[in-house]
Amino acid sequence: MENLGYYNGEYDLIDKMKVPMNDRVCYFGDGVYDATYSRNHVIFALDEHIDRFFNSAGLLKIKIPYTKDELKEILKEMVNKVDSGEQFVYWQVTRGTGMRNHAFPSDDVPANIWIILKPLNIKDMSKKLKLITLEDTRFLHCNIKTLNLLPSVMAAQKTEEAGCQEAVFHRGDRVTECAHSNVSIIKDGILKTAPTDNLILPGIARAHLITKCKLFDIPVSETAFTLKELVDADEVIVTSSGQFCMTACEIDGQPVGGKAPELVKKLQDVLLNEFLEETKVD
Amino acid sequence: MENLGYYNGEYDLIDKMKVPMNDRVCYFGDGVYDATYSRNHVIFALDEHIDRFFNSAGLLKIKIPYTKDELKEILKEMVNKVDSGEQFVYWQVTRGTGMRNHAFPSDDVPANIWIILKPLNIKDMSKKLKLITLEDTRFLHCNIKTLNLLPSVMAAQKTEEAGCQEAVFHRGDRVTECAHSNVSIIKDGILKTAPTDNLILPGIARAHLITKCKLFDIPVSETAFTLKELVDADEVIVTSSGQFCMTACEIDGQPVGGKAPELVKKLQDVLLNEFLEETKVD
Repeated sequence: MENLGYYNGEYDLIDKMKVPMNDRVCYFGDGVYDATYSRNHVIFALDEHIDRFFNSAGLLKIKIPYTKDELKEILKEMVNKVDSGEQFVYWQVTRGTGMRNHAFPSDDVPANIWIILKPLNIKDMSKKLKLITLEDTRFLHCNIKTLNLLPSVMAAQKTEEAGCQEAVFHRGDRVTECAHSNVSIIKDGILKTAPTDNLILPGIARAHLITKCKLFDIPVSETAFTLKELVDADEVIVTSSGQFCMTACEIDGQPVGGKAPELVKKLQDVLLNEFLEETKVD
Repeated sequence: MENLGYYNGEYDLIDKMKVPMNDRVCYFGDGVYDATYSRNHVIFALDEHIDRFFNSAGLLKIKIPYTKDELKEILKEMVNKVDSGEQFVYWQVTRGTGMRNHAFPSDDVPANIWIILKPLNIKDMSKKLKLITLEDTRFLHCNIKTLNLLPSVMAAQKTEEAGCQEAVFHRGDRVTECAHSNVSIIKDGILKTAPTDNLILPGIARAHLITKCKLFDIPVSETAFTLKELVDADEVIVTSSGQFCMTACEIDGQPVGGKAPELVKKLQDVLLNEFLEETKVD
């Protein structure tokens, strides 16, 4: 198959799949998701993504109708049905199906499991990103990977219209994260990245970046930084599951970063190598 | 028909209706809605709801594929297909169908129109509400009636578990609105209600309440009030399209209001009469 859409055990090409109008996602965005990439039909960092997925669901009291192992098996099975081994691997759970009513459905209504798979490669990390800045007007539950994504949609559109690739959110002076990724800075050899409070998603690529910094004895400071620190940084690093560690060359039209290229290259290489090793054919 | 689900021209019983997996509502909650009630198959305050619906869509740059008059005609036609004349009349627009991608689809992708109709009466206004208070952790676009409703879902569940009927949101000391309605207070013969900024939905029942206050020479102050003012009020009034003007008897287990019952009754009577007049059979 060229791509795959899965809903509660049924699957087909995504364009052919339909879901009940009364799935609670349709009225409330009542669900959470997670996503990663595969190569050679091997899903990268699956355990970490599954852990975060169950954590997101738990924070919203959504009961996933599978164990972690069962869900991993379903994902692995589906990934093997798509022709390309390099895929965007996305899944979500929504809080059941029933007549529109805000409060939770009764306990006997099972949550719905969705999977979307499509051919997609991880991004070329040698490319530099152009960023815009936007006031962060999102809700105060950004640690949960929910399907309430309108602010990210609006930010993505503004980013595209500005000819850029990502938007940096800030609450007043404080930088939080990007619309679809985490943002960190390197200044004087130290990696600074916002702490994982309710204002940012605990990014898995961010966690890997921190691990690799520690491997190389690069000091890591998990503290929030300001817009001024961002534009004055030696390097601005954007991390997400599809672009492990990319750097920015421009923010709001002004040049930034580019002052610690060797350090960045070292991190990019080790992160890419980790992906290639984990997803290699036996 | 007992109830009705409509999607881009097709309609059936809601339980039988399916929608494409790639409708953008499924991944982003990328849409807006509005809702009102009908009686005798006549939709109440339709012009105002349609105006707000187009305004919500416009604020998110969603292009509704109909004129206001065309959409009103579709709604009127569908309302006549449901057996009961007393209905909850709900409709939404979502930003088209396409492979998951945050930025808007191209201009040739039309938005999707949804309608849900089900038998439901407006609430008995003589009943008193029990309320809970919750910190308002929503995004800063509460003036737009979006499908990003997770905070309202969580609030509804907490409310139900507390044996109450509605949750009052507050940002710190400042009361904003309820999870599904606006909240106002009467103190010393004056109606106080938060201004229509980005922290509250510009409620149509709220607007009608203000109009009726002016009719009776009740002074109206559109200023934000505090939690303390809420619990000290002579009356706490909750307004929404399904419960024009209800009062609270309890907040977080403490008795409130009940000190200006004649004034409340006068407002409730004139608001109910307006509904009955507008929806009467010719």
